[in-house]
Amino acid sequence: MTYYLGIDLGGTNIAVGLCDIGGHLLCKKSAPTPPPGDPAALCAAIRDVCAGLLEENGYTPADVQSAGIGSPGILRDGVILYANNLRLRDVPLAAILEKELNLPVTLANDGSAAAYGEFIAGAGVGRSSLIAVTLGTGIGGGVILDNRLFEGGNRTGCEIGHMTIRPGGRVCTCGKQGCFEAYASATGLIRDTKEAMDRHPDSLLCQIAPTPDLVNGKSAFDGLRAGDAVAIRVVGDFIENLAIGIHNLIVLFQPEVICLGGGIAREGDTLLIPLQEKLRAMYLSEEYDSVEITTAKLGNDAGIIGAAMLGVK
Amino acid sequence: MTYYLGIDLGGTNIAVGLCDIGGHLLCKKSAPTPPPGDPAALCAAIRDVCAGLLEENGYTPADVQSAGIGSPGILRDGVILYANNLRLRDVPLAAILEKELNLPVTLANDGSAAAYGEFIAGAGVGRSSLIAVTLGTGIGGGVILDNRLFEGGNRTGCEIGHMTIRPGGRVCTCGKQGCFEAYASATGLIRDTKEAMDRHPDSLLCQIAPTPDLVNGKSAFDGLRAGDAVAIRVVGDFIENLAIGIHNLIVLFQPEVICLGGGIAREGDTLLIPLQEKLRAMYLSEEYDSVEITTAKLGNDAGIIGAAMLGVK
Repeated sequence: MTYYLGIDLGGTNIAVGLCDIGGHLLCKKSAPTPPPGDPAALCAAIRDVCAGLLEENGYTPADVQSAGIGSPGILRDGVILYANNLRLRDVPLAAILEKELNLPVTLANDGSAAAYGEFIAGAGVGRSSLIAVTLGTGIGGGVILDNRLFEGGNRTGCEIGHMTIRPGGRVCTCGKQGCFEAYASATGLIRDTKEAMDRHPDSLLCQIAPTPDLVNGKSAFDGLRAGDAVAIRVVGDFIENLAIGIHNLIVLFQPEVICLGGGIAREGDTLLIPLQEKLRAMYLSEEYDSVEITTAKLGNDAGIIGAAMLGVK
Repeated sequence: MTYYLGIDLGGTNIAVGLCDIGGHLLCKKSAPTPPPGDPAALCAAIRDVCAGLLEENGYTPADVQSAGIGSPGILRDGVILYANNLRLRDVPLAAILEKELNLPVTLANDGSAAAYGEFIAGAGVGRSSLIAVTLGTGIGGGVILDNRLFEGGNRTGCEIGHMTIRPGGRVCTCGKQGCFEAYASATGLIRDTKEAMDRHPDSLLCQIAPTPDLVNGKSAFDGLRAGDAVAIRVVGDFIENLAIGIHNLIVLFQPEVICLGGGIAREGDTLLIPLQEKLRAMYLSEEYDSVEITTAKLGNDAGIIGAAMLGVK
């Protein structure tokens, strides 16, 4: 049997796992990411956690066919062009790791890797196209078209979060106004929730999260479940903005599946049912009714599995 | 030598041409489109104009390898699912034409065919990806990724014109509010021009187009060239909206080339230079600077050439 290493590189942790050819995750292990800005230390840490994983689970390096790695930042052809939170610029990560691991290494954007994991082993099983939209601090994601990862014509990945959906609107962390992620990320929802609490200090929301630092992506949904009118409006506006961005993805890509990830996706049908309703009202053609809008199935393992599977040639 | 027939099916005319393997258009011919709603009459008319083209130019049916056809409407796998202005629904046009022409026939959306023509023989020569954006009555276009026509995960084509860029804004012909084409099509520009003339009856614009029915997609650009402040503002707003939609295409697809077509594209640098400036101000990454923003090179021949080339296997 041959196996495939998947590496999910984050600002805090390095998570690695071993998959079989079917994308089944057999074992995993993680370690803290070393302090940023030191590619050699980073690669050594990745090598060590991979070696530890194999050893602890009774595998040898000869059992492994290839490795894939999902990393934040702007990447192309195995090189991290720029990764803000890892403080890396122009680092040929794939080439360095090929030497460290003595394996062929494929590098992809972390959002792309997670999308590919869902495509192979989660929400996309049996399909040929899928877009993953991860609602977190920002909006990440990845696009699978015709059974392959699509990374844009220049191969640096799709920046779903930076579509403009409200020109002249909120300033995004990128400096531009009205980006999708300024509204429909967890950060956007938390901001909406806090602003609504300021305007409505008597609302139930202010009991659910008595101080602003206790507000999270779940607060407004909790308020909605408790019947609070202010929370219902906050969630409604959030889903409206989410629908605008997703509708744009549908008219442009027409994927078979849109798969929502991140903490907010754990709201399940409370999120999905009104979102599907809003989308249906926007659809240009009955053709779009067949697009499945669903939530991610693999949780945090998607990035490891996708990275491993991207290494399979 | 073998040649390839390209058919550009429009609501008014059927234009056909013969290309060589390099996408050079050798000869062309057109005929009026028969009254809508009669697939048999339509296919007979297409057959006749193709036969006439070959005969008049000294070719025989044996010289032709295949045919491609670009058609308006929602299409998939050789079938016109729905074409409003041809009044066709569920017509297997490719299969009917294969019998009429005794050739393999490929069917594509007209916007996709024109984009592919520009890709093969116009603005996309030497590139591997291109998005054509045609600014006409609506906004059409097509997407070429990795040297192939991309028609969406469900293979019905990308609806670039129906991206939402201004939620809650203008009502589009599709019924939805804030579509890209409600603002950045020729129709959108004409509407803006007329509204500005109503508000500023003393402006130079009202001399350029003394009555509303004389306003066209060139009027505001003519006013701008004459130094009219009202026209300058109209063109500025138009280009702003165009930039928003094109920026969204760039963050999602990162094509090597964005190619603008339609009458407004004939403004050339008057359109392109401020558009490029606005886009640069929106760019998230220096990576995007390499996207070429240009105008279409083939004019009305793009649809014929692209259709012919789509038939080349």
